[in-house]
Amino acid sequence: MEYSFADRVRYFDSSAVRDILKVVNQGNVISFAGGLPDEDLFPVQAVEAAFSKAITSGNKALQYAETEGLYRLREQLATRMERKGIVRSAEDILITSGSQQAIDLFSRIMFNPGDVVLTENPTYLAALQVFASYEVTVIAVDSDQDGIIEADLVEKISQFKPKCIYVVPTFSNPDGKVWSLERREMLLEVARNEELVVMEDDPYGDIQFDPAAIPLSLAALDHECAHVVYTSTISKTVVPAMRIGWITGPTPIIKLIAQAKQAADLHTNSISQHALSHLLTDYDLDQHIETIRTTYFERMQVMKKIIDEADIAGLSYIEPRGGMFFWLNLPDHMNPTELLKVAVEHGVAFVPGAPFYVGDGNPTTIRLNFTHATPDLIAEGMSRLINVFNLVEMS
Amino acid sequence: MEYSFADRVRYFDSSAVRDILKVVNQGNVISFAGGLPDEDLFPVQAVEAAFSKAITSGNKALQYAETEGLYRLREQLATRMERKGIVRSAEDILITSGSQQAIDLFSRIMFNPGDVVLTENPTYLAALQVFASYEVTVIAVDSDQDGIIEADLVEKISQFKPKCIYVVPTFSNPDGKVWSLERREMLLEVARNEELVVMEDDPYGDIQFDPAAIPLSLAALDHECAHVVYTSTISKTVVPAMRIGWITGPTPIIKLIAQAKQAADLHTNSISQHALSHLLTDYDLDQHIETIRTTYFERMQVMKKIIDEADIAGLSYIEPRGGMFFWLNLPDHMNPTELLKVAVEHGVAFVPGAPFYVGDGNPTTIRLNFTHATPDLIAEGMSRLINVFNLVEMS
Repeated sequence: MEYSFADRVRYFDSSAVRDILKVVNQGNVISFAGGLPDEDLFPVQAVEAAFSKAITSGNKALQYAETEGLYRLREQLATRMERKGIVRSAEDILITSGSQQAIDLFSRIMFNPGDVVLTENPTYLAALQVFASYEVTVIAVDSDQDGIIEADLVEKISQFKPKCIYVVPTFSNPDGKVWSLERREMLLEVARNEELVVMEDDPYGDIQFDPAAIPLSLAALDHECAHVVYTSTISKTVVPAMRIGWITGPTPIIKLIAQAKQAADLHTNSISQHALSHLLTDYDLDQHIETIRTTYFERMQVMKKIIDEADIAGLSYIEPRGGMFFWLNLPDHMNPTELLKVAVEHGVAFVPGAPFYVGDGNPTTIRLNFTHATPDLIAEGMSRLINVFNLVEMS
Repeated sequence: MEYSFADRVRYFDSSAVRDILKVVNQGNVISFAGGLPDEDLFPVQAVEAAFSKAITSGNKALQYAETEGLYRLREQLATRMERKGIVRSAEDILITSGSQQAIDLFSRIMFNPGDVVLTENPTYLAALQVFASYEVTVIAVDSDQDGIIEADLVEKISQFKPKCIYVVPTFSNPDGKVWSLERREMLLEVARNEELVVMEDDPYGDIQFDPAAIPLSLAALDHECAHVVYTSTISKTVVPAMRIGWITGPTPIIKLIAQAKQAADLHTNSISQHALSHLLTDYDLDQHIETIRTTYFERMQVMKKIIDEADIAGLSYIEPRGGMFFWLNLPDHMNPTELLKVAVEHGVAFVPGAPFYVGDGNPTTIRLNFTHATPDLIAEGMSRLINVFNLVEMS
């Protein structure tokens, strides 16, 4: 039979994260494509102990639970955020099934079809997928290495009357950029003047190679808690499979998101929530994050050294100060999609930059993940990739 | 500042399940309000063992995972469904964060604002909340104790051109009804003729007091797998906190739901998925379900006996043949909301029927859950409730 679907399915796109994950799962390819943390670093024993405690410390933990999330966990997250200058009450924090769901639920309460959201360009592709699924018009704002540029921001606001600005100001995905404090303050000032909501997506904030060098988050700068909706996750620092993220922001927004979440899935997996709460009490997560930082910093340096030594003419990048990705500008004549085909034949994979951009275009950028593979595999994979660069250069 | 939200938030309603859960959490009230399984029956040891195995049997289980769900689990669910005559391949099964998410994702790919869905009346209130959040027009079809009535179904289809029919044919929530085989076949025949999709919501199908007496599900009768989208859950038979449900149906529908789920939350908690897979292998879930059936049947009988002995003039019900609820038609002059106020003062709670109905109205129905309280507490709570009936009757 012929099925008649919602109009929004025309904007669905399955080619992005899903296909990336499929490449990752192929046997002989060394993949820099995914956005995966290294599973060898997962604190398995601590996670097991935390789940065991969660399951055996009272059957109520296995029952249906409140939509907003476990109150004790929300208090713990409030305390952790406060150490970064983000002062929010537990009541204004809602636990989500990963920060992906935070972006989705925020979009659900915020956007009508045809509404406009401003973003950086490039930006997180799965956020673009969410916006597309709500039939939102995404307008890109120009930015440089310090963040969005004020003149273009003001012009785009005037021209397109956006409802919201979505940004990843700390180790943005894909380009690893860190916004300067000045640009953060500028964005907030504009948001105040124009009565706009800013969604700050901060999945990587804890993976800082030099913590002292990172400016305060937008949420920390939004003292009146009126303009910034902030989301983060434990997927990069504990384990992704627990599917725990959270969202905090102005009370009216969080209240509506709770109503949306009730319809969407009642509540986030509460065994995971109890387990995370126990983990935050019983385990030194900060020490673990320190290990992750050190390990990923070393891997980034292995990758950087090989890129530098290859000395490819016309190739450039900004050195990552944290996060999980190298973002390379290739020489103008290179076609990332063609390059990927050759690369996979030679046993290495990456993501072409195109899906991270708003609108069409033919960017000569690629994203390389440096967190999932060991230093040896990074060295081997990069040697293959440099070989592919040279092959393409000669052909 | 003034926030400008999506139009759909006007249709949000937080008064239903959330408030029910809040009543449940009050100390001295014996609550028949929630839809909770009895946590004392949770197979805690088996769940703990399954989670331990899931977490320690390979770090990959803690990594990001595929949107459709763990393939091994989908195969196991296919095998379990096949025993009930529902023949679907693992590829056409998608794991959701509880069956609530299945209803939500199905709605997301199916409905534009203003589209029409037909339902029974009364029906599952959280499904009504989902439909409302997609700005869907819900039209109620007349039914009797055997299910929806063909004449009214055909008339409503002709009049309203619905896209879909949502039904809970086995132990429907709230009224506990079981559709006859004839009505099920009639509905499918109409769906075939009118090219309609039927969503069959089956959270309670395993809680049958007399398994031999229950007709095949709609999904089992949809041999060509063209018209029925079927969702079920382990929330009533294992534990709700694992948040595992699933949805199966025509391939094009499941493929679109996978794309919607990717944007919504990437994938369902995979520790829970691995744990459920281990549980289905290592634990005798069928024996456990048999224990649940026996226990809930006894509790239903305790409740029934007290209702019968009270012999309230004008009160009627259909005896539950499974599921979790007694649905009482009160005498016409009783106001369920007023009754609830008096009841809570006397230490007992229930849910007034109104939120389960499509549209407004002033029904004299109430829903009583018989699965969460022990027989002693059921006896005490029902004695309080009968006392309240008599008080109101005299006043």
